[in-house]
Amino acid sequence: MYITGIGRTKFGNLSESLPELAYEAIYASIIDSNLSIKDIDCIIVSNFLGGPLNGQLQLNSMVASLLPDIHIPIFRIETACASSSIALNQSIALLHNFNNIMVVGVEKMTSDLMMGPTEAIAMAADKEFDLSNGLIFPASYALIAQQYMRRYGISHDVLERVSYINHKNANLNPFAHFYHKDVTIEMIKNSPMVASPLNLFDCSPLSDGAVSVIVSNQKRSDRAVKILSSNFVTDSISLTQRKDLTSFKAVKIASKNAYKESAVSPRDVDVLEVHDCFTISELIALEDLNFCKSGQASQLICEGYTSRNGELPVNTDGGLKANGHPIGATGLAQIYEVVTQIRGEADERQIDGVEMGMTHNVGGVGGTAAVTILGMV
Amino acid sequence: MYITGIGRTKFGNLSESLPELAYEAIYASIIDSNLSIKDIDCIIVSNFLGGPLNGQLQLNSMVASLLPDIHIPIFRIETACASSSIALNQSIALLHNFNNIMVVGVEKMTSDLMMGPTEAIAMAADKEFDLSNGLIFPASYALIAQQYMRRYGISHDVLERVSYINHKNANLNPFAHFYHKDVTIEMIKNSPMVASPLNLFDCSPLSDGAVSVIVSNQKRSDRAVKILSSNFVTDSISLTQRKDLTSFKAVKIASKNAYKESAVSPRDVDVLEVHDCFTISELIALEDLNFCKSGQASQLICEGYTSRNGELPVNTDGGLKANGHPIGATGLAQIYEVVTQIRGEADERQIDGVEMGMTHNVGGVGGTAAVTILGMV
Repeated sequence: MYITGIGRTKFGNLSESLPELAYEAIYASIIDSNLSIKDIDCIIVSNFLGGPLNGQLQLNSMVASLLPDIHIPIFRIETACASSSIALNQSIALLHNFNNIMVVGVEKMTSDLMMGPTEAIAMAADKEFDLSNGLIFPASYALIAQQYMRRYGISHDVLERVSYINHKNANLNPFAHFYHKDVTIEMIKNSPMVASPLNLFDCSPLSDGAVSVIVSNQKRSDRAVKILSSNFVTDSISLTQRKDLTSFKAVKIASKNAYKESAVSPRDVDVLEVHDCFTISELIALEDLNFCKSGQASQLICEGYTSRNGELPVNTDGGLKANGHPIGATGLAQIYEVVTQIRGEADERQIDGVEMGMTHNVGGVGGTAAVTILGMV
Repeated sequence: MYITGIGRTKFGNLSESLPELAYEAIYASIIDSNLSIKDIDCIIVSNFLGGPLNGQLQLNSMVASLLPDIHIPIFRIETACASSSIALNQSIALLHNFNNIMVVGVEKMTSDLMMGPTEAIAMAADKEFDLSNGLIFPASYALIAQQYMRRYGISHDVLERVSYINHKNANLNPFAHFYHKDVTIEMIKNSPMVASPLNLFDCSPLSDGAVSVIVSNQKRSDRAVKILSSNFVTDSISLTQRKDLTSFKAVKIASKNAYKESAVSPRDVDVLEVHDCFTISELIALEDLNFCKSGQASQLICEGYTSRNGELPVNTDGGLKANGHPIGATGLAQIYEVVTQIRGEADERQIDGVEMGMTHNVGGVGGTAAVTILGMV
């Protein structure tokens, strides 16, 4: 199982419509792959809010409309913010039946919307138990941050550091939402409060964007990257059903399965992409993925371990915080970055000697969790 | 590949919430299967409008919340009105990796909604080219009916006959939306116009409901039913991109593939479930599925061929028209009926000697089309 082609749009506040974004990414991935669109025998579309925000569903058929006279199986997967990693996971499972499957993640969140995006995003939360009590996502992650910071005695400085590193990385990524935006620790510290203790720079932005990834059952080019494992599991949707807010059980199970399947251990991972929808998530991810013990992520971060010149560069593309978070495309953007690093094509942001990379993509407050491990062929 | 268990709710204007409907169907299918919920190693959720109508997405995680301490892969598929047949198709493809996969289709369309259901359903249409010109679905199918009736010289009487047969069949189905509703040809003929030539009785209703189907990689009981073929393909979303409105190319391709894969021919089919979202669709389905030539479906219908005592009983459960159309569950309701007929468990509505059945499920105006063929083990 190989990744044969990747393509993406810039992320940010863009003028393109949802179908235009999808088309741009599809086109880029075909060019990158050296395949023809006729070689693609199945497509999976990943999108979260096409209905509520854009008034457009049946996106499988919408994608068919973009392509010349194509009559293949196309379908859409939605699992909140983890949609595109689950779509990738399904494409891998389907390689029994197909040769080249395209996975297209797309989201349009900044303009021409049918409702407020924060209200729409909250549809990934439990309506009955969480949302009705005010738990939109910044509030849920604020509760998680409160519990984490209290239990492990860390200050907001650590979260600021996460935000700062992500923004610095995004400065090297021309596709990033916040490319060439100079962000200082002071700006982060003094940004407006969203939900205590999380301020504006703890939160990922609303982004438009699309990413397309082509997976194949055979190695089709010298630039192919191997999929060593893709695993995902599901947990309950409501925070009220969780025993512990400082760890996501679904991430622990998915990563354990992925390490086992790939025979890879955390110390083999050269670059890591984590789902930093809020800065606190990055700390929890490092622990749930077993890069350190519970409560020790702040130490890793503050000692520079996760910086681009550290032992384990994390979110070299800027992460959700600064690369951006067009929800249905986010997991594939992580894949895009890891593939680019393994190929040695990351230009200014290239990390030396990357042979293996991992992505971590989460839906809601850990209701869905996917872990993917990629390696050199 | 076998269907091991089936379960459903009544369809109609129900008091249960979306999670309650899903739970009821899940529970019924587990009881029917003689499996335990612990035997299920993957779940696919099918739903169309959970976001726009109910404000609830990430339904995979919502379903996990309904089940005791479960951490398995669960994901949601959406392909408009064909969502649940595509989910079934994917479950079959995944039997390489799992033993027993549950497919749960659910839709809540009649109460406690965030917007008007007709406006929400229209999200399956092309927003840019069709919907912006007034083509909500009754209007699109009215255009299709106009073109069909003109080309083949049939009157509205034939459509009335389709509606009448479906309502008569539903009278034998205690789960049907219109169970024990006495409908006469006069009522149908005199019902209010919706979009000329389609009147109220040409249109399927808004229904709440859920269906769950368990598929297995081995024969797990004497009541198992074999999946002979499941096939689906995608076409362009907009009517403006179609050369011919009186036939759906995606249905033709999917059924041709399914006949080939199963080595079944139309004359082998004992019961047929077609996607009669509007009565005109039933005529087009009979032709696209190759039960007769183009323009000859009206003859089959008027000669009683598709009635329950005819050679090919169609929509023995009442079809979308009278069994109901809870969109994300509709394709699985068709599977439920065919499995029940093959098992010989359809009570009052049992057709004698059913050994093979077929379902036909369509998204939008043929943007997605799925065909499934089931047979006795």
